Amino acid sequence: MLLMTPLDINGMRLANRLVLTAMVTRLSGEDGLVNDDIRERYLRFAKGEVGLIVVEAMAVHSAKSGPLLRLSEDRFVPGLRDLAKAVHDSSPSKIVPQIIHFLKVARSGWRQKITDLSRDDIRLIVAQYAEAAGRARECGFDGVELHMAHAYTQSSFLSRLNLRKDEYGGPLENRMRLMGETVLAVRARIGRDFPLGVRFDAEECVKGGYTVVESREMALRMAQLGVDYVSLSAGGKFEDAVHKPGEPLYPYTGYSGDRCMPSAQYPDGANLYMAEGVKRHLVERGFATPVVATGKIGTSALAEEVLQGGQADLIGMARALLADPDMPKKIREGRERAVVRCVYGNVCKNLDENFRKVTCFLWPKGRLQAPESADREPPRWPEGGAQLVAEPAHGRVTLRWRAASDNEEVYGYEVFRAEGEGTFAHLATSRGAMTSLIDASVVGGRAYRYRLVAFDLGGNRSVQSDVAACAVPMAVAMAP
Amino acid sequence: MLLMTPLDINGMRLANRLVLTAMVTRLSGEDGLVNDDIRERYLRFAKGEVGLIVVEAMAVHSAKSGPLLRLSEDRFVPGLRDLAKAVHDSSPSKIVPQIIHFLKVARSGWRQKITDLSRDDIRLIVAQYAEAAGRARECGFDGVELHMAHAYTQSSFLSRLNLRKDEYGGPLENRMRLMGETVLAVRARIGRDFPLGVRFDAEECVKGGYTVVESREMALRMAQLGVDYVSLSAGGKFEDAVHKPGEPLYPYTGYSGDRCMPSAQYPDGANLYMAEGVKRHLVERGFATPVVATGKIGTSALAEEVLQGGQADLIGMARALLADPDMPKKIREGRERAVVRCVYGNVCKNLDENFRKVTCFLWPKGRLQAPESADREPPRWPEGGAQLVAEPAHGRVTLRWRAASDNEEVYGYEVFRAEGEGTFAHLATSRGAMTSLIDASVVGGRAYRYRLVAFDLGGNRSVQSDVAACAVPMAVAMAP
Repeated sequence: MLLMTPLDINGMRLANRLVLTAMVTRLSGEDGLVNDDIRERYLRFAKGEVGLIVVEAMAVHSAKSGPLLRLSEDRFVPGLRDLAKAVHDSSPSKIVPQIIHFLKVARSGWRQKITDLSRDDIRLIVAQYAEAAGRARECGFDGVELHMAHAYTQSSFLSRLNLRKDEYGGPLENRMRLMGETVLAVRARIGRDFPLGVRFDAEECVKGGYTVVESREMALRMAQLGVDYVSLSAGGKFEDAVHKPGEPLYPYTGYSGDRCMPSAQYPDGANLYMAEGVKRHLVERGFATPVVATGKIGTSALAEEVLQGGQADLIGMARALLADPDMPKKIREGRERAVVRCVYGNVCKNLDENFRKVTCFLWPKGRLQAPESADREPPRWPEGGAQLVAEPAHGRVTLRWRAASDNEEVYGYEVFRAEGEGTFAHLATSRGAMTSLIDASVVGGRAYRYRLVAFDLGGNRSVQSDVAACAVPMAVAMAP
Repeated sequence: MLLMTPLDINGMRLANRLVLTAMVTRLSGEDGLVNDDIRERYLRFAKGEVGLIVVEAMAVHSAKSGPLLRLSEDRFVPGLRDLAKAVHDSSPSKIVPQIIHFLKVARSGWRQKITDLSRDDIRLIVAQYAEAAGRARECGFDGVELHMAHAYTQSSFLSRLNLRKDEYGGPLENRMRLMGETVLAVRARIGRDFPLGVRFDAEECVKGGYTVVESREMALRMAQLGVDYVSLSAGGKFEDAVHKPGEPLYPYTGYSGDRCMPSAQYPDGANLYMAEGVKRHLVERGFATPVVATGKIGTSALAEEVLQGGQADLIGMARALLADPDMPKKIREGRERAVVRCVYGNVCKNLDENFRKVTCFLWPKGRLQAPESADREPPRWPEGGAQLVAEPAHGRVTLRWRAASDNEEVYGYEVFRAEGEGTFAHLATSRGAMTSLIDASVVGGRAYRYRLVAFDLGGNRSVQSDVAACAVPMAVAMAP
C-alpha cells in the first residue's frame, strides 16, 4: 500500500503518506504558550503515527487574538521545543508548525484589509515570517509550513479579490509577489536543508475568486522557488463569512467554509479535482514537488486510490484524525476495521465557529482528548441481541436498539445500511450513550436493511447485530 | 462524431446532441407576448441547426414581473404557435418552451418564500404547470421543459434550505414531493407521447445547499416518474444574491451565479463532475434517461469527449451559441474553424443582471441579433501586415496591431498564444473595432508568442498575422 510507504521531503522522512493538516484547537491560552492540553493533543496524534503533524497556526506577529499559539518572539521557543522533542521521543511522526500572519478583525464587523497595508507593513510581514521560520528551526521542528490559505494576509494577496493598486495587486504575477518575497526570505533564514511547505487555497470558492486556473500557477511558482511541498485547501474566506453580532467576523462560516471542510452532504474527496489539476500542471512542467490533497478523504481505500492515481503525493486529514488519531497506526497494523470513522457532521467545525474548544462529537462526553485503551475485549450485546428496529416515517427512518455493554466503556455504534439486496456499507456512527439514530438520507420506493456493531475505547468491535429491514414509501409515485 | 448523431427523446428526434439551454433575453415586453425581437432571436438559433432549442423561461402564472414570456393563459398560444411553426418551417431544430413558476420579489429586498405558501397555493402551482404544459402542446412545440433550477419555486422546494415543516419540507423525500406531483400532473395533461424534460440544479453552490449526493437521487426519481430528459444546471440562487438598492433581488449575482455560468476564470467544463455523478447513478439503476450537461463547454472537442466518456448524452450551451448560433451548422459542415468562439467574459450575464437586453459582447456594436453573411471573402491585413506588438508591463502583456479590412465588415480578431516553443492555442477574441488587447493571464518567467487572425461576418478567417514575442519577468525570482 503506497499510503504506508515513506516519503522523503528535503531530508524529512515521513513514515507514511498521511498528514495531519493544521486545525484550530482553541486549547491554547491567550498567552500564546504551549500548555498541557495542546501538548496532550499533539502527543496523542504522534502516538497514532501519522506521517506528518502540522501544528495549528501560530502567529508570526503579536497582534491581539483569541487563544492562539505564537512564534513571534524567542520566549515562545522553549515550550514548542519541548513539544517537538516529546513528539520525536515517542513517535516516528515528524512535526512542523504552521506559521500565520493575519489582519485585525473587530467585534463590530470591521476588519483590516490588505489595501490598508503600507510597503513598510509588507516588509515587516516578510521579516516576521522569516524570523518565525528561523525560530521553528531552533525549536527542533522538522520543517515549517507557511499559512497562505483561507482568509488570512498571504491568501488575501494571492486572491483575485486583492484590490491593491500597486505592484502587489492586480494581475496574478503581482498577487504572487508577497508569496515570493516571503518564501525567499524564509528560505534565506532557514537554509536550503530545512523543509519548507506552503498551504494555500486551490480554489477560493467565493464570488470572483480564483480557481485551479490560477492556483496551478501559484503552485508552480512555489515549486520554482524551492518550496518542498504544497498543501491544498479551499475556501474559508472572509468575503462570504456570516457575521455573528458581538463576535469578530469569522471565516469558514459561509459557503466557502462548507467547501473548506466538506460535510457529509458532499461526496467523498469533494475537492480532489483541484489537487489533480495542480499536480498535473507541476508534473507537466517537470516538478516532482509533493502535493497534499485534502477535503473529506477519510478512508485508506480512497487515500490509496488518490495516491495510485497520481492526483497527489500525500493525504491530508484533519477531522478524520481528530475522530481517531490512531488511524495511521491501525492501518499499519492491518486493523483499519478498528478505526473510529469521522462522520463529517462538522460538530468540530461548529465548536470552532462558536469559539469553543475543539473536540470530536464521537468522543465520550466531556473528554478533551481522543480516548484510548489497550483493552482487547469487545463489547457484547445483551441477552437476546440488539433488537434493532427501523421505522420509516415522514421521509426518514428512525433506528432504535438495545445498548451493548463492555468491560470498560462502549464508545459508539457503527450503523451499516444496505439497499435492497445490496451489500452493507457504513452509514453513520453514534456515540456510546445514544441508542437511536435518524437516517434522513433515505429515498422513497426503496427497501433498506440496517445492522450495527458496537465498539469500545480500544476500537474492539462487537459481533454484528441482527438486521432490521424496512421499506420507505415514495411521497409521490406513478400509478402502477 | 457522436456530437453530430441524432438522438430520439420520446419520439422527438434531435438532429444532433447540442441543446440551446434556456437563457434570459429580456427581449420580450411586459405583455408576455412573442414579439419580433424574440422571434428573430430564436429563428437565428434555428438557422444554426442546434438540435434542441429551449425557449427562455415563460411563466405558468400571471405574477407581475419584468419582461417575460407567458404561457399562463390561452391568449399566449397564438404567438408561440407561430414561433414554433416558423422554427419547424426553416430548420431541423426541435423547440420546447421552459415553463416556470416564481415567487414575488420586491425592490425593498423582501421576497416571498416557499414557507409562505399554503397547501392551496401549492395545488395551484401544480395545476398551473399542467395547464401551461398542455398549452405548450397546443402551440405545436416538440415537448416541454419544467424549470426546477436556480432560485425559483420548484428549486426552492428541492433545496436543502427548504424550511417547510410539513410534508413538503425536511428530508429529501418530502422535498421531492412537489416535483413529483408536478411531473405527474403535467404528464397526465400532455399524455405519454409528448417529450417532457426537467432542468434542475445538480449542485446548489450555497451554504448548506445540496450536492450531487442528493441531486443524483432527484434525477433518478425524475427518471422513475417518466421524465424524458434531465438537464443539469448549478447554483443561481437567491441565498447569496447581492442586493442592488432600488432593484429587486436578482439571483446569479452571487457566487452561486458564478458557478451557474462559469467565467473564463473557470476551467472548461467546470461542472462536468456533476453530470458524471448523476449519469452514473442513473445508469447503475438501469435508466437510460438522457442527461444534458452544461457549464462552459464551448468546443466540439470537449463536447465529444463528454459524450464519448458517457458523462452525458447531450451538451447544453447558452453563451457559446449566443456568440455564434451557427456553431452546430458549421461543425456539421466541417467549418468549426469559422465559429466565433465565446470568450466567457460574461458580458451577457452582466447585461441580464442589470436588467438590459441580452446580447453578445462580440457582436458588432448596437446589434440585437448575431450577425450573418453569405460572403466568402476573408479579411485582409494592410500592406506590411498586422505589425503585432506585445509589450509586457506590470504583470500583463498589452497587444496592439493594425486593423484588417474586409469587403463587408471585420467582425473580430482571434488572439492565439504559445508558451515558449509550445503550440498556439486560442486565448481571446476582440471585437472588430478593437485593435488592442490586454493579456492578464500571463505568468512571470515565461516567454510568450502571439499571433492573430481577423474574421468577418461570414466567419471567414484572414491569413495569420506575423508573430510577436515577449518575455514576462518574474515579480520575485530566486538568485541564479
